[in-house]
Order: sequence, then structure tokens, then C-alpha cells
Amino acid sequence: MKYKGDREKVFNIIQKSLEGEPRKLYEAARHLCQAGGKMIRPMMCLMACEAVGGKKEDALYSAAALEMTHTFTLIHDDIMDNDLMRRGRPSVHAKYGIPTAILAGDLLFSKAYEVCDTKTVHILAKATSEICEGQEMDMSFEERTDVSEEEYLMMIKKKTAVLLKASMEAGSLIGGGSEKQIKSLGTFGLSLGMAFQIQDDILGMTADEKKLGKKVGNDIIEGKKNLIIIRGLQTLTGRERREFTRILSSKKKTDDEVREAITLLGNCGAIDYCKKKAENYIKEAMDSLVVATNSQAKQDLKDIAEYIIKRDY
Amino acid sequence: MKYKGDREKVFNIIQKSLEGEPRKLYEAARHLCQAGGKMIRPMMCLMACEAVGGKKEDALYSAAALEMTHTFTLIHDDIMDNDLMRRGRPSVHAKYGIPTAILAGDLLFSKAYEVCDTKTVHILAKATSEICEGQEMDMSFEERTDVSEEEYLMMIKKKTAVLLKASMEAGSLIGGGSEKQIKSLGTFGLSLGMAFQIQDDILGMTADEKKLGKKVGNDIIEGKKNLIIIRGLQTLTGRERREFTRILSSKKKTDDEVREAITLLGNCGAIDYCKKKAENYIKEAMDSLVVATNSQAKQDLKDIAEYIIKRDY
Repeated sequence: MKYKGDREKVFNIIQKSLEGEPRKLYEAARHLCQAGGKMIRPMMCLMACEAVGGKKEDALYSAAALEMTHTFTLIHDDIMDNDLMRRGRPSVHAKYGIPTAILAGDLLFSKAYEVCDTKTVHILAKATSEICEGQEMDMSFEERTDVSEEEYLMMIKKKTAVLLKASMEAGSLIGGGSEKQIKSLGTFGLSLGMAFQIQDDILGMTADEKKLGKKVGNDIIEGKKNLIIIRGLQTLTGRERREFTRILSSKKKTDDEVREAITLLGNCGAIDYCKKKAENYIKEAMDSLVVATNSQAKQDLKDIAEYIIKRDY
Repeated sequence: MKYKGDREKVFNIIQKSLEGEPRKLYEAARHLCQAGGKMIRPMMCLMACEAVGGKKEDALYSAAALEMTHTFTLIHDDIMDNDLMRRGRPSVHAKYGIPTAILAGDLLFSKAYEVCDTKTVHILAKATSEICEGQEMDMSFEERTDVSEEEYLMMIKKKTAVLLKASMEAGSLIGGGSEKQIKSLGTFGLSLGMAFQIQDDILGMTADEKKLGKKVGNDIIEGKKNLIIIRGLQTLTGRERREFTRILSSKKKTDDEVREAITLLGNCGAIDYCKKKAENYIKEAMDSLVVATNSQAKQDLKDIAEYIIKRDY
């Protein structure tokens, strides 16, 4: 696997920073880190560093801090959303209880700033504040029926895309990139994050259930907002709209009803609309790479962007 | 009030950094900050800066970060301990619910690093990791009957004293202090924190109930460990020890029983032992001030140390 060596270096920094006592707390903090995340944020940080002509070794500590920050948000999100599984294992609070899970998240948070290159601290902190804002928006959406497309896009921007932006900015800053390069590579991360999240929404409606690892139409089943559903509510009219909202708001949905709702979303063009949107973000991301020096890292960043739009699960 | 202007400057930095949306999240993050804490950490940070000949204006942002870090730990601690009141108002989770309270703590945490002088980031982060360790120790003590004096001192060191240490180190670092000055003023903060916590334990057993604002013997009533109780369990023998442990472990304690337990602790010398211990820490703190330049700030730090040992509530 490409970048296996880099992943290991970042992983080792994280593991080393999470040795300590009390044993239970540090075990809880390591729990998700050892569950094999894809480490997309640290890898993008290292690539950004190289894409402006820097040495990726210089960016390893900030890369680790990015992954630790991401992991801390997962731990706290799982508590708030009461999700009991994550990465195929019990979530941290399911295994260690809520008090220790809150602390394990806090510990990962502070350890991130212990290892983080001081040059990139403000980038990381600003992104983390926005992630908190995004999570609060996401929670507040569950109680609302009038979430606009604009609000939804703002939410996924904060909750997902800003940390990818921060990853690119941190890497290119450490690599000695110009202001223009840092800004443009940041846009790459932001656009990629938007595309990734929208693509996730699309695959949740259209992918093969076995590959997806969860039920097709899961957001419809759980009554969660996503861009396709919001677009559907804007576009559908008359009898079809009534049928769609009836299914959406019913407590118990049959498999047939969920399939029908997805068909309605397909027929009204909501799914295609979102595909187009994701493609536009990917295009924006690709365009932003013009500032990168010709390098393997630049090619690898392109490959990530292409993979995101082409993946089928 | 002395330092009123400084408090206001720090307060304003905190308030300004906590303007934002979603409204509910930022309100929750401001909730405790507006409840009028004593701001002991930021004030010590500014004094430390001046005590090495620096300009306190340079330390205002790190001072604010210290207070925000302290406040974030209070918010999360109250969730873990299910404390519904704090500083005379509902705790954050009592008012805004647990999910938003977790996020409000996280937001304060990240905002602290947005405002923090990058020079002092690693000092603050290391202290915060130790606070997490201390809180986990504190929680684990509740289920144990064999907590040693050494373990208890380690817990209060991490949970309380290290952030006072960090406050002094951050201030003196920003003020341009020598390595020796930074180290010695850090010891001042650490010793002061230890004395403060032990003095808290003593006052909880001996103070005037009206001044104390909670029940005398509250730790005995709630079955919580403190240094006096741990010392009592080491020192008491025979019938008195049996009587003390009976009261300690009984579910419902009468006022008479609580008074009797405190008398037993007084008679066996446990309270005097802790008073001596607190005085020793204060002496250590005073001695550490030898590295400070002669200044108003040095005198003010001395005054704080004297106040802590002499206060009666």
C-alpha cells in the first residue's frame, strides 16, 4: 500500500504520545486510534508539504495532531449521538463509560497540542472550533424540518471540510509554501471535503448494501437530513411530495417505503443534482492544485480527488 | 479591587473570542465565564510576567487561554460528577443539556488555543493532559478504600496544582525570564496549588458553615477522599478506628455522627498534620520567589500565598 511507511511514522508518534497513566484513561484514548482509520488527514498534510517543495518529515508531528484531533471529535460525537459502534468496534463510551470517554477525548485533544508544531497551532485550533459549531448545527437539524441547502452545506463544511482544509494549510505552511500556495491548497482540502460528504450522502442512497456496510437509505430510515433529502423536499410537488414526506415522517418505515422514497428522489432529479454538485467541488479542488509544484505528491492529491468521485462505497 | 483593570482586559479577550454562532453553543460556552470566577490563573500569569521584568500586556492572551482552559475543565467535570450547580448558577449541562455542554467545553478548549501565544502552547497542553489524568484518578478513588497519601497528593497535583504551575511558567516565559526563573516560579505555582487544595480540605472540616457555603464535613457526608480522611485512616486505631470507618461507610449519616468523625480526626492529629503540610507547601512557595526581581508583582504573589494559608473560608 502506498504511503504505508508514512502512515506508520504518524501512527508511532500518536502511540508514543498515548503512553501513560492512569491505565484506563490511556487505553480509552488509544482505543479508536488502534482501530485502523484511513489517516486521510495526516496523509494530505504530508502531501501538501511535499507539493510546495517541503520535506514531509518536517510535517509528521502536525500530521499526527490532525489525526488525534479527528479522533477526539469522533469520541465526543459518539457520546452525543449515542452511537455504540465505530470502525467495527464498540465506541469508546460503550466500552469505558461516558465519564472516561469524555476525558479520553479531552486527553487526545490536549496531546494533539503537545505534539503539534507551534507554527500550525492556530490553524488547527480554528478548525476545531468550527468542527464544534458544525456538530451543534448537525444536532439542531434533527429537530427541524426547514433546513435549507445553504445551512446544510455550511454544516458539512464545518463538520468535515474545514479539517481537510486545515490539513492542507498546515502541510503547505510547514513545507514553506507561499501565501498563495497555502490558500489554494487549503481550498483543495475544503472542496475535497465537501465532495466527500456529498458523495457519502449519494452512496448512502445508491450503493450496494454489502459494500456500504449499512442499510441503503439509512438517513431516510433514521430521519436525518442530507443534501439529497433537502433537495427532494425543495423539488417534489403534489402527490409525490406528500408521499415522500409521509414516508420521511413515519416512525416505522418498511423496506418498500424506503425504496419508494429513493425512487422519488431519483425521479425528481435530486440525486443527479447532488452528483453534479459533488463533481463541481472536485473540479474546484483539481483547479486549486495549479499552485502545486510538479511532484509525486501533486499526482497523489489528484488521485485522491478522483478516487472520491469514483468510489462506489 | 486590585488588578481590576487586568481582570477586565482578560475578561474582554475571553468574551470577544466567544462571540459566534450557533447561538446556543456560544451561550453555553459563555455561561460560566460570565459567572464571575476569581481569575486566579490569569492574574498569576500576569504577575509572573512582571516578576521577571516583563510587560504584563504581552501575557494577556496566554492569561485568557489559561482561564478558558480552567473553565472548560469545570464544564466537563460537572458532567462527569453530575454536579448541577457551579458558582451559584446551574452548571452548563444542567442548563443546556449534556451534548451541548460537551461541545461548549470543547469549544472553550479550542478557543483557548486560538488565542494562546504560540510560545506557551506546549506548557498549556502538557498541563491540560495532566488535568485529565488527575480527574480520572479522582473518579477512580471513589470506588476505592485504599487510596494512599502519595496517590492523593499526586491526584491534587495533577487536577489543581499543575495549571497554577503552568500559569507561572507561561507568564515568566513571555516576560523573558531565565530558565532558572521559569522553573522556580513554576514551583511557586505548584506548591501554592498543593497548599490551596489541602487548605480547602481543612476548611471543609473546620470552617464556619455560613462562610463555607456548604456543609461542614461534606467530604465525610459524600464519602469522598481527602487528605485528612486518608491520614485519619492511617493513624486511628482500635475502637476509634472502627467507629470512624463505621460512620464513613454508613449510607445515612446524622449531623452528630459527622461531628464525631471530625472530632476523631482532630484528636488523632490528622487535621494538624494537614495544616503542617499546607504550611510547608506555602514555605516552599515563598522560597521559590527568591528568583523574582523586586517588584510589586513579587509582593502580590507573596500576598496570595499568605492569603491562602490564612483564609478562613
